[in-house]
Amino acid sequence: MELTFFDLLSALIVLVLGIIVAKVLIGIFKNGLQKTDLPELIVEFLSKFILALLYVAVLLATVSMLGSDISSVIVGLSAVIGLILGFGMQDTLTNIAAGIWIATLRPFDKGEFLVVNGFSGSVHEVGIMATELLTPDNKLITIPSKLVWGSPIVNATRMPTRRVDVDVGVSYDTKLEDALQVAIELMKENAMVLAEPAPAVVTTALADSSVNLQLRAWTNTEDYWGVKGALTNGILKAYKEEGIGIPFPQLDVHLEKE
Amino acid sequence: MELTFFDLLSALIVLVLGIIVAKVLIGIFKNGLQKTDLPELIVEFLSKFILALLYVAVLLATVSMLGSDISSVIVGLSAVIGLILGFGMQDTLTNIAAGIWIATLRPFDKGEFLVVNGFSGSVHEVGIMATELLTPDNKLITIPSKLVWGSPIVNATRMPTRRVDVDVGVSYDTKLEDALQVAIELMKENAMVLAEPAPAVVTTALADSSVNLQLRAWTNTEDYWGVKGALTNGILKAYKEEGIGIPFPQLDVHLEKE
Amino acid sequence: MELTFFDLLSALIVLVLGIIVAKVLIGIFKNGLQKTDLPELIVEFLSKFILALLYVAVLLATVSMLGSDISSVIVGLSAVIGLILGFGMQDTLTNIAAGIWIATLRPFDKGEFLVVNGFSGSVHEVGIMATELLTPDNKLITIPSKLVWGSPIVNATRMPTRRVDVDVGVSYDTKLEDALQVAIELMKENAMVLAEPAPAVVTTALADSSVNLQLRAWTNTEDYWGVKGALTNGILKAYKEEGIGIPFPQLDVHLEKE
Amino acid sequence: MELTFFDLLSALIVLVLGIIVAKVLIGIFKNGLQKTDLPELIVEFLSKFILALLYVAVLLATVSMLGSDISSVIVGLSAVIGLILGFGMQDTLTNIAAGIWIATLRPFDKGEFLVVNGFSGSVHEVGIMATELLTPDNKLITIPSKLVWGSPIVNATRMPTRRVDVDVGVSYDTKLEDALQVAIELMKENAMVLAEPAPAVVTTALADSSVNLQLRAWTNTEDYWGVKGALTNGILKAYKEEGIGIPFPQLDVHLEKE
Amino acid sequence: MELTFFDLLSALIVLVLGIIVAKVLIGIFKNGLQKTDLPELIVEFLSKFILALLYVAVLLATVSMLGSDISSVIVGLSAVIGLILGFGMQDTLTNIAAGIWIATLRPFDKGEFLVVNGFSGSVHEVGIMATELLTPDNKLITIPSKLVWGSPIVNATRMPTRRVDVDVGVSYDTKLEDALQVAIELMKENAMVLAEPAPAVVTTALADSSVNLQLRAWTNTEDYWGVKGALTNGILKAYKEEGIGIPFPQLDVHLEKE
Amino acid sequence: MELTFFDLLSALIVLVLGIIVAKVLIGIFKNGLQKTDLPELIVEFLSKFILALLYVAVLLATVSMLGSDISSVIVGLSAVIGLILGFGMQDTLTNIAAGIWIATLRPFDKGEFLVVNGFSGSVHEVGIMATELLTPDNKLITIPSKLVWGSPIVNATRMPTRRVDVDVGVSYDTKLEDALQVAIELMKENAMVLAEPAPAVVTTALADSSVNLQLRAWTNTEDYWGVKGALTNGILKAYKEEGIGIPFPQLDVHLEKE
Amino acid sequence: MELTFFDLLSALIVLVLGIIVAKVLIGIFKNGLQKTDLPELIVEFLSKFILALLYVAVLLATVSMLGSDISSVIVGLSAVIGLILGFGMQDTLTNIAAGIWIATLRPFDKGEFLVVNGFSGSVHEVGIMATELLTPDNKLITIPSKLVWGSPIVNATRMPTRRVDVDVGVSYDTKLEDALQVAIELMKENAMVLAEPAPAVVTTALADSSVNLQLRAWTNTEDYWGVKGALTNGILKAYKEEGIGIPFPQLDVHLEKE
Repeated sequence: MELTFFDLLSALIVLVLGIIVAKVLIGIFKNGLQKTDLPELIVEFLSKFILALLYVAVLLATVSMLGSDISSVIVGLSAVIGLILGFGMQDTLTNIAAGIWIATLRPFDKGEFLVVNGFSGSVHEVGIMATELLTPDNKLITIPSKLVWGSPIVNATRMPTRRVDVDVGVSYDTKLEDALQVAIELMKENAMVLAEPAPAVVTTALADSSVNLQLRAWTNTEDYWGVKGALTNGILKAYKEEGIGIPFPQLDVHLEKE
Repeated sequence: MELTFFDLLSALIVLVLGIIVAKVLIGIFKNGLQKTDLPELIVEFLSKFILALLYVAVLLATVSMLGSDISSVIVGLSAVIGLILGFGMQDTLTNIAAGIWIATLRPFDKGEFLVVNGFSGSVHEVGIMATELLTPDNKLITIPSKLVWGSPIVNATRMPTRRVDVDVGVSYDTKLEDALQVAIELMKENAMVLAEPAPAVVTTALADSSVNLQLRAWTNTEDYWGVKGALTNGILKAYKEEGIGIPFPQLDVHLEKE
Repeated sequence: MELTFFDLLSALIVLVLGIIVAKVLIGIFKNGLQKTDLPELIVEFLSKFILALLYVAVLLATVSMLGSDISSVIVGLSAVIGLILGFGMQDTLTNIAAGIWIATLRPFDKGEFLVVNGFSGSVHEVGIMATELLTPDNKLITIPSKLVWGSPIVNATRMPTRRVDVDVGVSYDTKLEDALQVAIELMKENAMVLAEPAPAVVTTALADSSVNLQLRAWTNTEDYWGVKGALTNGILKAYKEEGIGIPFPQLDVHLEKE
Repeated sequence: MELTFFDLLSALIVLVLGIIVAKVLIGIFKNGLQKTDLPELIVEFLSKFILALLYVAVLLATVSMLGSDISSVIVGLSAVIGLILGFGMQDTLTNIAAGIWIATLRPFDKGEFLVVNGFSGSVHEVGIMATELLTPDNKLITIPSKLVWGSPIVNATRMPTRRVDVDVGVSYDTKLEDALQVAIELMKENAMVLAEPAPAVVTTALADSSVNLQLRAWTNTEDYWGVKGALTNGILKAYKEEGIGIPFPQLDVHLEKE
Repeated sequence: MELTFFDLLSALIVLVLGIIVAKVLIGIFKNGLQKTDLPELIVEFLSKFILALLYVAVLLATVSMLGSDISSVIVGLSAVIGLILGFGMQDTLTNIAAGIWIATLRPFDKGEFLVVNGFSGSVHEVGIMATELLTPDNKLITIPSKLVWGSPIVNATRMPTRRVDVDVGVSYDTKLEDALQVAIELMKENAMVLAEPAPAVVTTALADSSVNLQLRAWTNTEDYWGVKGALTNGILKAYKEEGIGIPFPQLDVHLEKE
Repeated sequence: MELTFFDLLSALIVLVLGIIVAKVLIGIFKNGLQKTDLPELIVEFLSKFILALLYVAVLLATVSMLGSDISSVIVGLSAVIGLILGFGMQDTLTNIAAGIWIATLRPFDKGEFLVVNGFSGSVHEVGIMATELLTPDNKLITIPSKLVWGSPIVNATRMPTRRVDVDVGVSYDTKLEDALQVAIELMKENAMVLAEPAPAVVTTALADSSVNLQLRAWTNTEDYWGVKGALTNGILKAYKEEGIGIPFPQLDVHLEKE
Repeated sequence: MELTFFDLLSALIVLVLGIIVAKVLIGIFKNGLQKTDLPELIVEFLSKFILALLYVAVLLATVSMLGSDISSVIVGLSAVIGLILGFGMQDTLTNIAAGIWIATLRPFDKGEFLVVNGFSGSVHEVGIMATELLTPDNKLITIPSKLVWGSPIVNATRMPTRRVDVDVGVSYDTKLEDALQVAIELMKENAMVLAEPAPAVVTTALADSSVNLQLRAWTNTEDYWGVKGALTNGILKAYKEEGIGIPFPQLDVHLEKE
């Protein structure tokens, strides 16, 4: 390791030039960031972080000029930085990958109504890092992409038609045929209910206090809530008129006076 | 490290040529992407990402032309990139692997009815990245492959026959033999119920307010819902006619006036 | 790095030959895959993936012919590919390892009745990647091996004998000795109940409205459901005949008129 | 490995100088830390940790002066340190990355009302490591950034308008049209309720004991709680005046004296 | 890279010999496996997997004979194989390590009664990969070692004595001293209840409808179930005889006729 | 590899000296540990562990003296040790990092009242590895730092003022204005209730059996429990005096005698 | 690669000597293990595992004698073994680290009463790998250290004093001052209740059917259960004597005959 004067000189030049270049670069970088609306805190943090990396690089180049073999240091540093970056950016990268897949496969588009991660709302914005939903009462929900793409996505408005389900319980005294008949008529009379597939009524359970029925009517997706409201109010009115009882909870009491 | 003029020249050529080639390549890549229906946002993002990688490669080649040994830099960079790519693409790769296994083992085919991850629906589309289900009321559910292949998959229509189970409770006063008899007859009279395996009725519990029975009738899978509906409505009617009571909740009250 | 004409020539030959060999290999591979019943989508995907890997290998060989040292590139590429493959195939490998252990330790065999991961059914198929169960009502459940081997496996039919438990509550007025006596007799009279271990009745709780008893009768595993049904129906009938009450929920009401 | 006197001398110099420099550096570092309000415990801990690292570096430099090749030791140490730092700082780095994304995407700003991770409150402080919420009853909640950015974020005050939902149940005897009419009037009379979108009343369920209605009125976000209170008290008063009953739980009792 | 005829020859010999040795080795391996009762499927799978590894080794040796430096390839391959094996065998290794610790620390022995992972039963078999439990009704439960050693293990029969707890509620009218006295006597009269520690009765809660008592009697572990049954039946009988009421749920009803 | 006598001699010297140094070092280390109150078990364990590491280092140095190149062994060993240490110390490092952040950001100080991880108590001790809480009934809870910093931290006493919320339900017959008026007066009369922000009463729900009100009074944090108790007892007394009913659960019974 | 006869000879010697040394070492190791009470199964397993490792080392040494450069093989093998060991021993190492921290920080000592991981009991044994608890009814619970140190640890007997809380509900008719007075007296009369902090009674809720009170009395930790029992029985007796009612669930029934 005999150092010539020339070696020392060139190392010094590399060092000085490197620091100047690093400062200039970081100045440009900082300027650029400050034009965005990122908070000052973040700008400072990122600038210092990158400046530190640049200084390390300059130092290595200087030492290398003095004739040392820095290859093992480079490999070592890379392993450390790689692991730290890898762990630190894991979530970010997963979000980006999920965002790209959502944009590519389009399980939902702006304006469609979703249920995802237990939250429901219409899509307000599809971004790479996150998706924004608006609940029906106008709360804004921001869901990171990896959560969206990490759970089943229910799209309620993608298909052109939907089936409207209305649950109602009738008393065990009711003649079942009548109850079914009234419900079918109600659905057939509604102009927004499609003729095909035909509306139907099914007995979903022989429950404790009532025979549970479900009205099933197909409709265009944009008419869904209209039909839902009309059928709910309609079946209540129709059963009242026909004298078909919607029963309260029932209890058989065996009384023993003491 | 004595640099000849020739070294400098060839390095310059490599640099200039490299940049040109990188720009051309990225142009072609971008053109190709824009013909797909990927959103502009994604196209820009991917192009810039790959362009950055190409520039790094060009820079390394140039430095190498100047006689530096860049092998440690390559190993180091590879470790960093490998870790970042590995972490970032972990979900994507898991999805692809799961998708390939689903396509290979075929635990379900298009049109079959599934319960998976707590969601149920008929299969609308089997893809590598995700599976699409349609719920009976026509909501579209997109489930990433790793979720599908990461939980038990219940296929309700794969087997040619199914057993229909209908639950009904009879009062403790009922003569149990009669209740069983009526239920068996009902099932035998139904044309869609298979003779073999023979329909059966079992007592599932001596519950609080009722003796709980379960009718079990075998049928062809396509007749499942028809039989289910017929038996539910049928057993209600049959028990009414036979005077077999389906009891409301029962309560023994010991009254103490004060 | 002085390149001779011979170097260039041999590099060219390697490049051309490599591409040809790669194409031939991928053709054979693709042909083989298409004879299986894998979907076209998967065949295309795998072929392109492997072709890309082969081209990279050919490129490296060509560059190596030109005298470059590609060892660091190989190490770097291996790290990247290893991490990506490792992450991507993690689930697959875990499934295979679990499948091998299941096949080796045989916690269940075809036809046995399991409860695993909250699902129950008889074993339809034991594979390396997944196990298939058939529910009693004939739904097919596919459970990936790592889920099977990642949770306790309850095998209900492995042992030659089983104990049948039937729960019944008797009223607080009942003379407990009588209730126990009747239950023991019932079990002893049943031909499918084993004499040894002897049937027993235990008081499981002094509950709110009843004294809870449990009949415990040993039987051969294949008679399990027969005994279960016979004892449930039998104890109901026997208690009715003996006048031992199975009480409804009880409530002491202190009435205060206003 | 023939060591000259000069080698030994320079190694000694490096060792002594290194220790002095390390002590000076750590003194400066410690002074700096003590000016912050970090607890003494933390300052001591960090100083000792960094001092140990510096001593290792000095030792390596000394050994290197003696002519040994320490490159493999450097690579090895880097792997160990990288893995330990990587694992140890994983949470910290994830928090920082999440904090940067929150500051960049601004799913909430200071003063807005959030529901996140099951906690709700108005934003008191947005930091890189954590977000502080103030509950309405003035408890301070500190949520690490990775938890905030790792779950859906519900922002209740981001949109300029909100929909106020008030639930009320009316008896099955009520004429539904009257109940709807009264509710609509109530909302229209309220000055803070917006005319567009128009207020509405929907039947949400035919429940056990009541027909459940929901009043839906749009308002400016800052009027939300005022409107909510006014409508709740208002609908109670209005229904009382109109004789529309808000029913208690209902029960049909079938009495059997014994 | 000048190849002599001798190099080519020795490479060829290595190749041919290698293939032969690999085939012989795999034959022996396969024979050995087929003598175990492993399914044919697994034997085939493992043989092919190991054969592939041997061929790769032979290929590398051949190429090495031709003078190429294959060290980077070996390092690269090792990284890939290490990561894949590491990920694939993670569960297996965790199970083995857990199995060794269970065998070493012996938190349970064959025949003892456990509650672990929410399942309870007596230990049927302790293996390295899994533990087998037998439920009291004779279902066989196989629990992988890592699940056993990854949750608290409750051993109900390890200690020579156990405390039997019997819960009973007495009415608020009861004179508490009498109820306690009767219970203590009952326990003292039981021959299987140990005198030391003395039996005790504690008031566990002033509940809605009853004062809840708990009888606590110490016994030898093998007498546990005998004492439990005797005390449960005994306290019911004793309280009946003493006229101490075990109350039904109580309700104060304020009646308002309309 | 020609070994001179000198090589052998120096290797021997390194070996002997190394062992002596290792023994001396471990003796000092052990002495130091024994002065702390660490259990003997731990001291033995750590001493043996470090002694083993030192012996490995001595062995490597000896082999190196004999002229072997041990660089690959060092890299290999480092990878193994790094991975093992990394995995083994992951929890410890995460705890330390979390502890440092807690000490730095101070989401709580000694004596403040927290709810964290579902446990609540006043802070007894803030350490780097764990935080100690004292529950109000004086149980000591030790929570590892990573659990504290891995969940939202609710600090109930950080802010100088708190809002006291008292829930009370009034009957549907009550004139709502009166009930609100009485509650407001009660709060205004309490000297510990702040005038600004003014106390308020809101209707939180039109519940099944009552109109649910919430009294909201601001107070200094140290007066919180005093105000809470005074308002709870006070509103009960005030409503009794004013004849405003706090209703029991209500039930409408439709009686059908049989 | 010209091999001399001497090379072959020394390789052969290394091979033979290595095998002998390996066999001797494994014999000693096995002997040592068999003196412990480890099951034969485990001894065999560990011996074979370590023998295999030794053979690999011998093989490498032999090949190295033949002049091959085995450094890349060592690095490769180390990576593979490191990853496998790292993954396989992850749980073990985490347990050890947790055990050391528990022994160092002593969140509990032998004999203290804990609630941890949802299980409670007095500490029976504190080990490095696991902690043993004894439930009050004498079940032995073994909890691996990483579970103990991975959740909050509640130590109920660490502090010298404890607060006893007894919950009791009084009827809405009661004069609250009287009920409080009686409870305070009761506590003051108990000799084991400390005078400072003074006993107190707080109103915890205005519940559906009762005003819920909580008696809070401080006591020495060893008197805890005595005080708890005395106060529970005492308050019941005192309220009976004073005519203060502990109410049953209340219900207002509005009767409508049909």
